[in-house]
Amino acid sequence: MENESKHLTDRMVLSYQAGEWIEQEDQIALEKPLTLRINDTEFATLVCTPEHLEDMVTGFLASEGVIWSSLDIEEMLFNESQGIVNVKASVHVPLTSDTYTKRVIGSCCGKSRHFYLQSDSKTARTIMKAPELTADECLENMKTLQNQSTTFKTTGGVHNAAIFRNGELLASRTDIGRHNALDKLYGYVLRHQLKSSELSVAFSGRISSEVVIKLSKMGIGVLLSKSAPTELAIQLADDLNITTVGFIRHGRFNVYTKSERIKR
Amino acid sequence: MENESKHLTDRMVLSYQAGEWIEQEDQIALEKPLTLRINDTEFATLVCTPEHLEDMVTGFLASEGVIWSSLDIEEMLFNESQGIVNVKASVHVPLTSDTYTKRVIGSCCGKSRHFYLQSDSKTARTIMKAPELTADECLENMKTLQNQSTTFKTTGGVHNAAIFRNGELLASRTDIGRHNALDKLYGYVLRHQLKSSELSVAFSGRISSEVVIKLSKMGIGVLLSKSAPTELAIQLADDLNITTVGFIRHGRFNVYTKSERIKR
Repeated sequence: MENESKHLTDRMVLSYQAGEWIEQEDQIALEKPLTLRINDTEFATLVCTPEHLEDMVTGFLASEGVIWSSLDIEEMLFNESQGIVNVKASVHVPLTSDTYTKRVIGSCCGKSRHFYLQSDSKTARTIMKAPELTADECLENMKTLQNQSTTFKTTGGVHNAAIFRNGELLASRTDIGRHNALDKLYGYVLRHQLKSSELSVAFSGRISSEVVIKLSKMGIGVLLSKSAPTELAIQLADDLNITTVGFIRHGRFNVYTKSERIKR
Repeated sequence: MENESKHLTDRMVLSYQAGEWIEQEDQIALEKPLTLRINDTEFATLVCTPEHLEDMVTGFLASEGVIWSSLDIEEMLFNESQGIVNVKASVHVPLTSDTYTKRVIGSCCGKSRHFYLQSDSKTARTIMKAPELTADECLENMKTLQNQSTTFKTTGGVHNAAIFRNGELLASRTDIGRHNALDKLYGYVLRHQLKSSELSVAFSGRISSEVVIKLSKMGIGVLLSKSAPTELAIQLADDLNITTVGFIRHGRFNVYTKSERIKR
């Protein structure tokens, strides 16, 4: 039996239960390396769940400050068997790999703020406008997220992320990598030219500093999660004007930053 | 009330439950960037849970092929307030950042095998010797892992990893980053000069290709997880002779590769 999904495959595994061993078929999540070549220069390799790759590449390049809008991309040619995508684009940064390993400590808006990557300090921005949500919306959006990507429930351990506008689900993306799931959403936002000031994001994983920085790059000011933020994430969210709502489960949640956007 | 732990801090949060809002104190996980300077060259920045940093730095440098044993490290000076560690070491690779972004497709032992990073192809190795475990040991080791790091249970979403020898827990490490948790174990193994052929690892997260590659670098041939492997992880584990046991929960599990090391 072949699996129709692009992110699952079938495989025989040896199962143990209460002293019994059986061989049985199991659904296994795919994971593929995708090497990005931009204007004939090798730029990076992303290891990802192989679906919504146009969105992911677009979102990744925008996150890194390489492109500023999806219109900067002229062409995207996938060679799936080799795991390569060739992108032709108008780029806004020099395409060297060196910028990826240097940490920059900067100071903007009169507040302390540190980013570990140069690309972060270039593309992260303080959120000026974001939607207001009711407590029920926080709970409902998280429930909607969890009802998505049901095929993955049996395979465990992936990251799910979704964008909402006025309580409506616009897109939901799944990946074995947390960055990829968010980049796939970012690419969707760019390719559909959505107003980020009207959007909120629900995320399955922990709110780490990297997730907050990604939200700020996306220009989205409300982040919902079923897990908790780290201390560094809270500091950054405070600085970047991002509302963080965590531990959304069993009808309860915590608001960590910019609570004025959650209606009481 | 100050928190004694190095990985948790206290903070006031706004809590919602069933229509009620209250301000209350919550425990928040710390997350810190740590920049590694090796012989006065900036090498990388790891964003991590700030504990067991000597182990993490040692394991990370060995994973990357920069050092071959903990004896290669002459000195490790932490500047905690600046988030910098200065390492003096006998290094075995040129310390440029360029090697970190190129993917290498190689072929060893007559099998197809691809690594995304040059450092992987240099330091990953086929496992020649590994322990045999009983089904009960698989279940017990996972239970032991889950009983560790109880302080983190309330804050959600971290990665736990532990090494075992003959059913005995030797070390357990926690981090917000999966690589860091495993690097902390690797550093422990190196610093205590343990025989990796006698060890198994239990891991809280999904078995991705990166986790399998890390195990192979550590020279450890048995990996237990409460989650599932990806297809790429299974292929690599097969190639690298690593036994992968996943979905260990509620008295059952699946063996995906090299099942002869699990006694029936």
